[in-house]
Amino acid sequence: MAEENKKENKKIIIAVDAMGGDRAPDEIIKGCVEVFGLCDNLKIFLVGKEEIVARKLDEYKSRELNFDIEIIDAQEVILNNESPTWAIKNKKESSIVKGLNLVKEEEADGFVSAGSTGALLSCSTILLKRLPGISRPVLATLLPTINKNKFVMLLDSGANVDCKAIYLEQFAHMGYVYMKNIMKINNPRVGLINVGTENLKGNIVTKEAYELLSNSDLNFIGNVEARDILSGIADVLVCDGFVGNIILKNIEGMAKNIFGMLKNDIKKNIFRKLGGLLVKPAFVNLKKKFDYNEIGGAPFLGLNAIVVKIHGASDYRAVKNAIMQCVSFVKNDLKEKIKLVKA
Amino acid sequence: MAEENKKENKKIIIAVDAMGGDRAPDEIIKGCVEVFGLCDNLKIFLVGKEEIVARKLDEYKSRELNFDIEIIDAQEVILNNESPTWAIKNKKESSIVKGLNLVKEEEADGFVSAGSTGALLSCSTILLKRLPGISRPVLATLLPTINKNKFVMLLDSGANVDCKAIYLEQFAHMGYVYMKNIMKINNPRVGLINVGTENLKGNIVTKEAYELLSNSDLNFIGNVEARDILSGIADVLVCDGFVGNIILKNIEGMAKNIFGMLKNDIKKNIFRKLGGLLVKPAFVNLKKKFDYNEIGGAPFLGLNAIVVKIHGASDYRAVKNAIMQCVSFVKNDLKEKIKLVKA
Repeated sequence: MAEENKKENKKIIIAVDAMGGDRAPDEIIKGCVEVFGLCDNLKIFLVGKEEIVARKLDEYKSRELNFDIEIIDAQEVILNNESPTWAIKNKKESSIVKGLNLVKEEEADGFVSAGSTGALLSCSTILLKRLPGISRPVLATLLPTINKNKFVMLLDSGANVDCKAIYLEQFAHMGYVYMKNIMKINNPRVGLINVGTENLKGNIVTKEAYELLSNSDLNFIGNVEARDILSGIADVLVCDGFVGNIILKNIEGMAKNIFGMLKNDIKKNIFRKLGGLLVKPAFVNLKKKFDYNEIGGAPFLGLNAIVVKIHGASDYRAVKNAIMQCVSFVKNDLKEKIKLVKA
Repeated sequence: MAEENKKENKKIIIAVDAMGGDRAPDEIIKGCVEVFGLCDNLKIFLVGKEEIVARKLDEYKSRELNFDIEIIDAQEVILNNESPTWAIKNKKESSIVKGLNLVKEEEADGFVSAGSTGALLSCSTILLKRLPGISRPVLATLLPTINKNKFVMLLDSGANVDCKAIYLEQFAHMGYVYMKNIMKINNPRVGLINVGTENLKGNIVTKEAYELLSNSDLNFIGNVEARDILSGIADVLVCDGFVGNIILKNIEGMAKNIFGMLKNDIKKNIFRKLGGLLVKPAFVNLKKKFDYNEIGGAPFLGLNAIVVKIHGASDYRAVKNAIMQCVSFVKNDLKEKIKLVKA
């Protein structure tokens, strides 16, 4: 295959959506420039409004520094209220459609975007194909755990709000392959998010998924309750995209609210204020742990190509990390490993 | 009705499961004794092993202090692996079955238990009837918000893991009646837990529930994302019992993990340790906010009687608060108000 060849001999080529997200194009372009300090043999297609992107790249002296960045002009933007099917036909000049087409045409190995999750997922699924044996692509998010430098992958974290049990089994398989190959975890532990640890607990879907996972050759550790998500008990946690979205946003809200409530109470008197200053580094460290910019992007797994979604409010660090993730996927041949060909 | 009469002229009578929960019977009995300091015109049936309960009551000098506590002997205990249907027939001498039968026979106005949620819910539903117009009883949990002394009611927080949209509408109605009558909130704001705020977001059930709630006469404020649960944006939040359980346990886990991570980092050097001591009151206040013992119990709403479930690890404060909740339900005639007779 052409792609296999490319992987060994040629540069790894990542297309990046310069226009998606709240802090585009500035932070996106900054991330693309900075990643060259971390990675050799890389080429980036920056997809966006040429005049804006070019001016910004000049500011970073990208040409003088010999960074291999090529601008792909894309003058259109998909709006939130536009249907992806419509956009693919009618907004061929949008950065998402152009970027994904580069991947489809095998001009690029992967695509990174901070644009709308819905548009990115739908356009990806329509333009790129699903991998053999995979019913639904899945949004896979890495979360911090209480164990230093250990992560847990939550999937589906928002792509498919209505799921069959068999999808959950496939999500588990994809998460397992990811954590083993990219995060280098030996025989990752797979858990099923459920309302109790006993094997008969759950709703219709999780009860059936429990059976499927028990009979799979994955390292299935059983049901995991929501209080243990960050406890480090599992490396991969599966649930439907509705529950996954609830979990992610609940974690985000709790982190924010707990800090907020503590801050308000600490401000109440001078002693606490002083104490607050002294413990500030601990707060900063913890905030960093929950900062998506430090973690990078969430890949859509199960597609016949690599697409990484980054948070809409991402700064350059998230862009940099997401590109590095893409590179790692290509180098580790993740796509081939995710293919699910059942005997 | 006999009950209505009782409410105005007679004592309010609450049956309490002396044997359920991890800290039974000591903390349960302590709670029952202490509640007499807060409430007149109250009688308690303490349901449990007579010899144990009597000895404990003597320790608290309950007889000398003239507390109206009557022991109802119940020698059996329902085990976790026993089916409720079986237990109702074969363990008539268990504290849950005996306590619920007191309510059924209108000997008591309500029942409080820290026993297994599953057994309590199933036995309650079988022994007591559902209220007219209510398809499923619901577990309703009060959560703290970032606004001082303001709570949000989450229902279903774990009773029904598979729900139809119509159940969610009924949950909303019950939560509304509760917050209006017990928490004295004027026209409570009802939100639907969902993956996005836009009205077309969600899975099959929430999309349909959105329609039903929009057409109801409740004060429906639309979809609420999981990051806003504690933000005080709504007084009542509805979801299915699977999602509700995930949210509750995730909040519990996050509170615990964030405190744990901060503590570990604060211990790292002497300055932070000192700072930690100074801000400790703020931590204590926040912990108190998330302490179920301070909040009390979670009622099962929609039954033809009042049943309040308290956390398995509850101490006497939760028992005391749950009994006070029961008293408030009776005084405010909550049961009659929850009846859903559609025009």
